[in-house]
Amino acid sequence: MNNYKVIAMIPARLGSKRIPKKNIRYLLDKPLIQYPIELAIQCERFDSIWVNTESEELGKASQKLGANFHKRPEELATDTATNREFTYEFMQKHKCDYVVMINATSPLLKLETLNAFLDYVDSNCYDTIVSVIKQKEETFYQGEPLNFSLEEKVNSQLLEPTEAICWALTAWKRDNFMKMQESGINPVYGGVIGRFSVPKNESCDLDTLEDWKIAEGMLMAERILTDERYMDI
Amino acid sequence: MNNYKVIAMIPARLGSKRIPKKNIRYLLDKPLIQYPIELAIQCERFDSIWVNTESEELGKASQKLGANFHKRPEELATDTATNREFTYEFMQKHKCDYVVMINATSPLLKLETLNAFLDYVDSNCYDTIVSVIKQKEETFYQGEPLNFSLEEKVNSQLLEPTEAICWALTAWKRDNFMKMQESGINPVYGGVIGRFSVPKNESCDLDTLEDWKIAEGMLMAERILTDERYMDI
Repeated sequence: MNNYKVIAMIPARLGSKRIPKKNIRYLLDKPLIQYPIELAIQCERFDSIWVNTESEELGKASQKLGANFHKRPEELATDTATNREFTYEFMQKHKCDYVVMINATSPLLKLETLNAFLDYVDSNCYDTIVSVIKQKEETFYQGEPLNFSLEEKVNSQLLEPTEAICWALTAWKRDNFMKMQESGINPVYGGVIGRFSVPKNESCDLDTLEDWKIAEGMLMAERILTDERYMDI
Repeated sequence: MNNYKVIAMIPARLGSKRIPKKNIRYLLDKPLIQYPIELAIQCERFDSIWVNTESEELGKASQKLGANFHKRPEELATDTATNREFTYEFMQKHKCDYVVMINATSPLLKLETLNAFLDYVDSNCYDTIVSVIKQKEETFYQGEPLNFSLEEKVNSQLLEPTEAICWALTAWKRDNFMKMQESGINPVYGGVIGRFSVPKNESCDLDTLEDWKIAEGMLMAERILTDERYMDI
């Protein structure tokens, strides 16, 4: 990140709906919000690290964990407030070249992946960099085969992948984002877009309690060594 | 499954490559092959249940677990032998209306999902029914937005989903499959195709050891009740 000033923004509401208070809920052995904060600190490549939240309590708790507290105005903390609005408000207060949004809902993200993402931001000149999950699977879209033919079954390694945005990491060039927002154009996918591929086992959604259980299971699986055992045949 | 005769086929080689001997390897507390066999038995809707394998040992072990042993000819157990070939050979030996292929590589599959799949087969008249994972995520294909617009960020619930085939469950109408194969046409996606949606937490690939760990973690997560704990703020 040689000449760039890059800052990390971790959006976190206290009033989450489908999983109540998920940001302060323990995921295995630590609160969810602690995962992205620790990751960003370990990375040592951010000029500053901010938790963007409407909650004084969550803000102060985040400070104890080593992040800065950006107080989001109440009106931008509703269910209908959009990413572009609270990110724009954040950018107004913090000068930098890039804002990297780290989502608390991706606690499985590894340091090496964050580093590779920052290298990708650094070595290109994109206005927006989204993180995607590449999938090489036979996929239908609107009922029709998208990347395969019904006439042939090919090795899935040869399929053209789909790339689904996972929102684990997103980077925006501040200048471009602010200019677009001020012109009334959606800046979330603004300008020239780069796509960065995140390993599928580091991505998870935490929309539902079921997702939460999966994430706990994946974290657990990383920590335990189960025996390699075979059936007698 | 009123008037239909439906049989279950569980393909399982002993000589798997990326995860050696995965079918007899313990996934958590039982060998992988035991998952689909137990599921099919519990379901009580199959006329018969067959493990389709080249290995005498694996075949006999499967019999002990309650399945029948269909001995696959050696030439159809190579890395290059295709699904259509071994399924056709299987169908030649077993008369029925539908063959349902249950993949051992989807050990997270639940009984209620298998039942819903069989209901779907039963209440339609498809030639081929594939299982898919529906994803409502902003998706790129060949570098271009597929189901979203760069001009607008919409709630992902409103996105047109992609549907990726997961191969957890597949059903084929035997007559159609055999006729197509005999005419030299690929029967794997033959005739009129139905798509059945499987919950994403019941689908997993077991291609790599990493996938294996994830599956173990997810199984573990299902069994444990982690405390609902919150950070003091």
